[in-house]
Amino acid sequence: MKLNNQIVEKLLTEFLRNETYKIGIKKAVVGLSGGIDSAVSTYLAVRAFGADNVKCILMPYKTSSKESVIDAMRVVNDLKVPHEKIEITDMVDAFIKNIGDEKMSNVRKGNLMARARMIILYDESAKENALVIGTSNKSEILLGYSTLFGDSASAINPIGDLYKTQVWDLARHLNIPKELIEKQPSADLWEGQSDENELGFTYKKVDDYLFHKIDERKTDEEMAAMGYEKEFIERVNKMIYRNQFKRLPPLIAKVLNRTVNIDFRYNRDWMT
Amino acid sequence: MKLNNQIVEKLLTEFLRNETYKIGIKKAVVGLSGGIDSAVSTYLAVRAFGADNVKCILMPYKTSSKESVIDAMRVVNDLKVPHEKIEITDMVDAFIKNIGDEKMSNVRKGNLMARARMIILYDESAKENALVIGTSNKSEILLGYSTLFGDSASAINPIGDLYKTQVWDLARHLNIPKELIEKQPSADLWEGQSDENELGFTYKKVDDYLFHKIDERKTDEEMAAMGYEKEFIERVNKMIYRNQFKRLPPLIAKVLNRTVNIDFRYNRDWMT
Repeated sequence: MKLNNQIVEKLLTEFLRNETYKIGIKKAVVGLSGGIDSAVSTYLAVRAFGADNVKCILMPYKTSSKESVIDAMRVVNDLKVPHEKIEITDMVDAFIKNIGDEKMSNVRKGNLMARARMIILYDESAKENALVIGTSNKSEILLGYSTLFGDSASAINPIGDLYKTQVWDLARHLNIPKELIEKQPSADLWEGQSDENELGFTYKKVDDYLFHKIDERKTDEEMAAMGYEKEFIERVNKMIYRNQFKRLPPLIAKVLNRTVNIDFRYNRDWMT
Repeated sequence: MKLNNQIVEKLLTEFLRNETYKIGIKKAVVGLSGGIDSAVSTYLAVRAFGADNVKCILMPYKTSSKESVIDAMRVVNDLKVPHEKIEITDMVDAFIKNIGDEKMSNVRKGNLMARARMIILYDESAKENALVIGTSNKSEILLGYSTLFGDSASAINPIGDLYKTQVWDLARHLNIPKELIEKQPSADLWEGQSDENELGFTYKKVDDYLFHKIDERKTDEEMAAMGYEKEFIERVNKMIYRNQFKRLPPLIAKVLNRTVNIDFRYNRDWMT
């Protein structure tokens, strides 16, 4: 699990630069939440494109913790990147009001917030001809702990193959302000929300498990022999499996000879 | 290009039923625009799940044509499906106001509308444990004539492998009200918008071209020999190529052994 962060930094910075420059884009936009994932993506983007070319957008909702904005501003001030603050309260509350469901759950409200933020980032990206940089780590992508077409939406994601614990490690290497590294991870969609409370396990535990399972292809039997409880194994496996749809494009019914994402599935940089 | 619509109807209906029932879902939600694509998807969904299980949502913006709502209601009344009308004006205008850009183009406003509709459909889908049915046809998917995370977003799309002209054919077979079949196709994002004016060619012409190119794998030289102009070939090829990103999930930097959508790429129904 331990990576050489000097090499990782170089790899991810060059990945960002190569993949954007080759399509003629030299600018990036990132949604800065005050959490560690978007901070690491921002530091990498600044190394790739230069601070002037990385626009950071802070998008608090009325229930967002004040500390989130303070921590996001630590990144802005440290990197001297252009930034803008667009509160999403009006937009999200307009959805809640017009949908008109008084019993709307916190999870549904959280999805509204995540998707309202996606809209703002993609609008900025169209306006500035910039790419939206992803901020989802491998732990949340595998567990499906994200909002489809919300925080999981991006053009290019430098940290999507790093587990949360590896993102923390890389953050230390990048000298990200310690307040962001030390605080409890939270999606900050409602007050007092904590990733690890909600998930019911620590990132340390699940990251080790996921690394053995996914990257080392260990079987459930081997994992049980290593000491993971049966309930934990079943629960995590089910999360990976049930959220597979979030990692895939829409399912299209095959009718003709070549169907998009079935047998018409080129890379981005394919050219006829 | 001509299909046996009896077989296509059966194939698509069973596709919808099989793919949803096997994950334990028996309900669908569709955004009904008044256009032919969402009408065909709705008729197919009703045949698959029964009218009571297909919730239709009409989501006009203040500039949407009144005829769009009238035509959408023709579908609702013909099929006797449950429906709801949620105007998106408050939400979209809240974005426009908070983003605060007076020069926002029609295209950017259109993207706001398409994405606001996605938010409402996905919220309904979470509330009702229903799948969002896709309404994008193969012509627009290949040309990238859609909003990413907007109208192109769905769980399952029965018409994504049918060209627009084939969707019209299927609509006639399904006895969809003729007003919807006969009107000019339009995204209805601003007044007087017409797909064919905006694209600069007819669906008839581009569908024939796309079918030869994509499904029959004809080369550009063969297409030129068939009489397609060089500028048309280049323009359409460029549209397909430049919009490939809309058909793919976010690009993730590879670091570890198995990276999502690079070498961890199971189907939806994979189970460990």
